[in-house]
Amino acid sequence: MKAWYFHEVGKPLTLEEIPDPVPGPGEVVIRTRAAGLCHSDIGYMDGTLASLLGPLPIVLGHETAGVVAELGAGVTGFRVGDRVAINADVDGPGTLIDGGFAEKVLARARELVRIPDGVDFDQAATATDAGRTSYHAVRTIGRVTGGTRVGLIGLGGLGMLGAAIAVSAGAEVHAAEINEDVHDRARAIGVRKIVKDVAELADDDLEVIIDFAGFGTTTAGAIDAVRRKGRVVQVGLARETATISVQNLVLKEVQLLGSVTGSNADVAGVLAMIADGTISAEVTPVPFTEIPAGFDRLIRGQAHGRLVAHFDDRGR
Amino acid sequence: MKAWYFHEVGKPLTLEEIPDPVPGPGEVVIRTRAAGLCHSDIGYMDGTLASLLGPLPIVLGHETAGVVAELGAGVTGFRVGDRVAINADVDGPGTLIDGGFAEKVLARARELVRIPDGVDFDQAATATDAGRTSYHAVRTIGRVTGGTRVGLIGLGGLGMLGAAIAVSAGAEVHAAEINEDVHDRARAIGVRKIVKDVAELADDDLEVIIDFAGFGTTTAGAIDAVRRKGRVVQVGLARETATISVQNLVLKEVQLLGSVTGSNADVAGVLAMIADGTISAEVTPVPFTEIPAGFDRLIRGQAHGRLVAHFDDRGR
Repeated sequence: MKAWYFHEVGKPLTLEEIPDPVPGPGEVVIRTRAAGLCHSDIGYMDGTLASLLGPLPIVLGHETAGVVAELGAGVTGFRVGDRVAINADVDGPGTLIDGGFAEKVLARARELVRIPDGVDFDQAATATDAGRTSYHAVRTIGRVTGGTRVGLIGLGGLGMLGAAIAVSAGAEVHAAEINEDVHDRARAIGVRKIVKDVAELADDDLEVIIDFAGFGTTTAGAIDAVRRKGRVVQVGLARETATISVQNLVLKEVQLLGSVTGSNADVAGVLAMIADGTISAEVTPVPFTEIPAGFDRLIRGQAHGRLVAHFDDRGR
Repeated sequence: MKAWYFHEVGKPLTLEEIPDPVPGPGEVVIRTRAAGLCHSDIGYMDGTLASLLGPLPIVLGHETAGVVAELGAGVTGFRVGDRVAINADVDGPGTLIDGGFAEKVLARARELVRIPDGVDFDQAATATDAGRTSYHAVRTIGRVTGGTRVGLIGLGGLGMLGAAIAVSAGAEVHAAEINEDVHDRARAIGVRKIVKDVAELADDDLEVIIDFAGFGTTTAGAIDAVRRKGRVVQVGLARETATISVQNLVLKEVQLLGSVTGSNADVAGVLAMIADGTISAEVTPVPFTEIPAGFDRLIRGQAHGRLVAHFDDRGR
């Protein structure tokens, strides 16, 4: 099969012919239909995240959707032809083992989530990374539900998705975003109140504040602003450390909760919201043969929405 | 009735005759039998904690046990003669309103916890403050139970009590305490492993670490040492702030949980452990008329165990 191989930090991906994967017990071969291009991939290629990678050369691509092509021994619950997304963790395809920038990809059956009718492969691929991360932070760790008074810090890609997820859950959403250019868009998707700094949310009686920014000061500000016995969910990692008021944490009995990636249930939750039209990622298709050019656009900040490599099916 | 009045920051307590309290709806008058002398009282008297106090003059004493003497309208669940401890919060007797350094004290019925047979008033008084704080941190917030692998930082009064509570719950207790003088005592009460620094507990696969010290570095060290998806419970407040690795918090999905005071259920939990002989506070009785001298000993560091003011009953 054709695959984009990553041989060495700092070197470009190369399109090569490599052997088709063969499924072992509990494994499934997926015919790739869509594979998202992610900033993490850039970190793998430029070396900043390379310590997480499995042995090189490796096929990158950890946001993958496709069709079940072959089942290994003992796999139940899936059939050839099923449409699935791969819920890839750091020990999965595209990080520790070969991923989705290839015609086929090998996954463990427990990593697969069925794609509902009406959700295309492009949308499904985005659900496995940004989508599940926001969903996990808002619904699973933040326990946001109908009527929850929630504050969000940082309305970039993840944060704006988080806002849509919280609004659709029936929460009352307040937000702090320093870039006023996105304030109108936030209001348009249902954010009730939007300010520039989390300190301005301190009187809003917020039960949970989710920090998608992670500038350290935002973590500290969230602990100070959240209500007594409230929760602060930490997602963003713009800075490695934060100096927080332990006094406020203790005296208010605040919970500071780290949130990373997400489970199959989180991916299924996002896919259900895409299926019912609640959320939709903006996708720019990239032909399979032009994945390196797609990364160039991502590096130069010229990508519009999520870039998803598109695999032409040609009846195979 | 006789009561020790606190009139002004920096001035000594004065023993005065003041009117007996009268119970309003939902309130109960308790005949005081034991009232603990606490370091917080010293903070109220020297001004460092005075901002928390209600209007002066006030009767201090927030660790109180006694006998129900009179019931206000609508109080159910208690009868005259019942032995009770007052679970006083910062809005309760001894802080916001008159407390236990008097012959009688007024409390809300919802603040009362019944004292089990076999637990004396002195022990019950200690259960309402140090006891409930440790119990709340270990059992309620830390969710330590049989088989839990738990680490404790700081084996002073609260921490040693926390160790006894965790051991009696059936947990495997590891601890970090810089003062090696108490290591043998910790082993004697069932602490499995004891080291000087929490970093030495990093390979122990601890599900929860409870920081009774609160030096900032201890909070950070606990986040780094606890296992993936583990909990860090913050109790100690030796420093106001801590600089923590947000990266470790997020990537390991650690929960940092503030813990302060405790509920009636926590007090009842401590009382049950005192009743079955699992834990016992070391108490030095102080006659009611010598409360100021007791505080002098506490200030000079000459108090042995918990000082508890003793009210002679004389058949009243």
